[in-house]
Amino acid sequence: MIGQQTERPIDRLAVIGVGLIGGSLVRALRQQGACEQVIGCGRSRATLHRAAELGLLDDYETDPARAVRGAEVVVVAVPLGSMESVFRELREAVQGGVVVTDVGSAKCAVVSAARAAFGRLPPSFVPGHPIAGAEKSGVEASSAALYRNRRVILTPSSATAPAAIARIRWMWQQVGAEVLEMDCGHHDALLADTSHLPHLLAYTLVDGLARKGDPRETFRCAGGGFRDFTRIAASDPYIWRDICLANRDALLASVRLFVSDLERISEAIRARDGDTLLSVFGRAKEARDRLEEP
Amino acid sequence: MIGQQTERPIDRLAVIGVGLIGGSLVRALRQQGACEQVIGCGRSRATLHRAAELGLLDDYETDPARAVRGAEVVVVAVPLGSMESVFRELREAVQGGVVVTDVGSAKCAVVSAARAAFGRLPPSFVPGHPIAGAEKSGVEASSAALYRNRRVILTPSSATAPAAIARIRWMWQQVGAEVLEMDCGHHDALLADTSHLPHLLAYTLVDGLARKGDPRETFRCAGGGFRDFTRIAASDPYIWRDICLANRDALLASVRLFVSDLERISEAIRARDGDTLLSVFGRAKEARDRLEEP
Repeated sequence: MIGQQTERPIDRLAVIGVGLIGGSLVRALRQQGACEQVIGCGRSRATLHRAAELGLLDDYETDPARAVRGAEVVVVAVPLGSMESVFRELREAVQGGVVVTDVGSAKCAVVSAARAAFGRLPPSFVPGHPIAGAEKSGVEASSAALYRNRRVILTPSSATAPAAIARIRWMWQQVGAEVLEMDCGHHDALLADTSHLPHLLAYTLVDGLARKGDPRETFRCAGGGFRDFTRIAASDPYIWRDICLANRDALLASVRLFVSDLERISEAIRARDGDTLLSVFGRAKEARDRLEEP
Repeated sequence: MIGQQTERPIDRLAVIGVGLIGGSLVRALRQQGACEQVIGCGRSRATLHRAAELGLLDDYETDPARAVRGAEVVVVAVPLGSMESVFRELREAVQGGVVVTDVGSAKCAVVSAARAAFGRLPPSFVPGHPIAGAEKSGVEASSAALYRNRRVILTPSSATAPAAIARIRWMWQQVGAEVLEMDCGHHDALLADTSHLPHLLAYTLVDGLARKGDPRETFRCAGGGFRDFTRIAASDPYIWRDICLANRDALLASVRLFVSDLERISEAIRARDGDTLLSVFGRAKEARDRLEEP
């Protein structure tokens, strides 16, 4: 399939895992007229039936190998812990040159899983990660607007076919995303810092409070800042367990650096060193303010 | 002034520090018809003039002792680092029985400052803390809605006059807040956990990223979770330096417990112990979900 013209709707799209991420992609592609037939695949027939009822799927299968037959593009949108086993079911399709991408939040682990499942990194496999999500999960929470003005990072290798990259790039652009490319190690370090570590900190804080004193009183006295700061602690525990394990090394490196920064700042508080606090807080405010600039 | 009837508008309110917190209180009290004359006080004539133009103040002074003459209630809404020096200017008024409250985010430090400035804890002094704020500061950002459905914690001592407490309680209720009472140590531990520690974590994270790699690229790839999590890192560095120093001991205790929790969870990641991660994340999600319940 690689090598066909890029700028036309995807003939037949197979989506393995029709949850928030997969479901939102299908909604947005359909809204843009950027795909024709869509086949869903998942473990739960009830979920697939519901996704079909919502108008997302033309058909569905519970067996990935059957779902991807005749597909032009396959999007694997399952939790990280299930990637390798799904990839194994796609061996035949990948050998036939079907363009396959994924949406996993840790890219080196996905690349390893692909290498293990396919025996090598196939030219038609384009690892990808849309930086978008929500605390809600499942197809019911899916939205055609999820990827609008969001970033999608692709982490192809030198073995990846340029036409496969172009096809996946085109797909994400249709749903309003900006597509970047980088190597998987860089992606993983970046995401550890900006996403995986913040989730870990929010989970740790809320769990600590829940185990301490009377959480009802504690949360009753929490302000808007606490609400914003801890919103990500409502994210799906299974998905985040998988992410923490899949991006283990980069995440632990981020944690180490963070703890050493926090200890340095705590030392300034202990020493009543207001100037150090002011310089740290001031630098952070300046950087955070820039994030809100258009 | 203590002992007058509680349920009537405040005759003459003096607000020392007309920024977001003081300005929002005045707006809301005026909207409710809960105060008559309002005298503002601050170091900047330009700010006071602007607050008068906005219709918040009937008059203003730059000298606190003059501003509180004839006041029935005085609200001290200055940064924590300025509390003690402002209190010293209010000695005469307090000796005359004027009801004085403050809005400081660390209550034991304010109580100590009051004791130092007044020579004892005066019966008419009611330490208070409205749990409301915004990343924006200054009178221009003030809003009559800031305290609606928010909590205000009062931390009176056994020496505080019940009538003074009742007057301040009434004032905050008029602007839509729910008023709680607790001792200052309990307040400080609670706020360290739910507000001061989260601010410290957000500042530490954003400062670390700003000093590392290319912050423009880093922030470009940050998702909505990062935006929410770090919103409080845009808070006023001066105010937060003061809070960290004023609530030093409780905050350092919260940091210690947090770091030990974080290290335990990191150890689970290192050991690829998915079950521990799942139980921590699951407990946190359950607690955080409850926060959104009505």
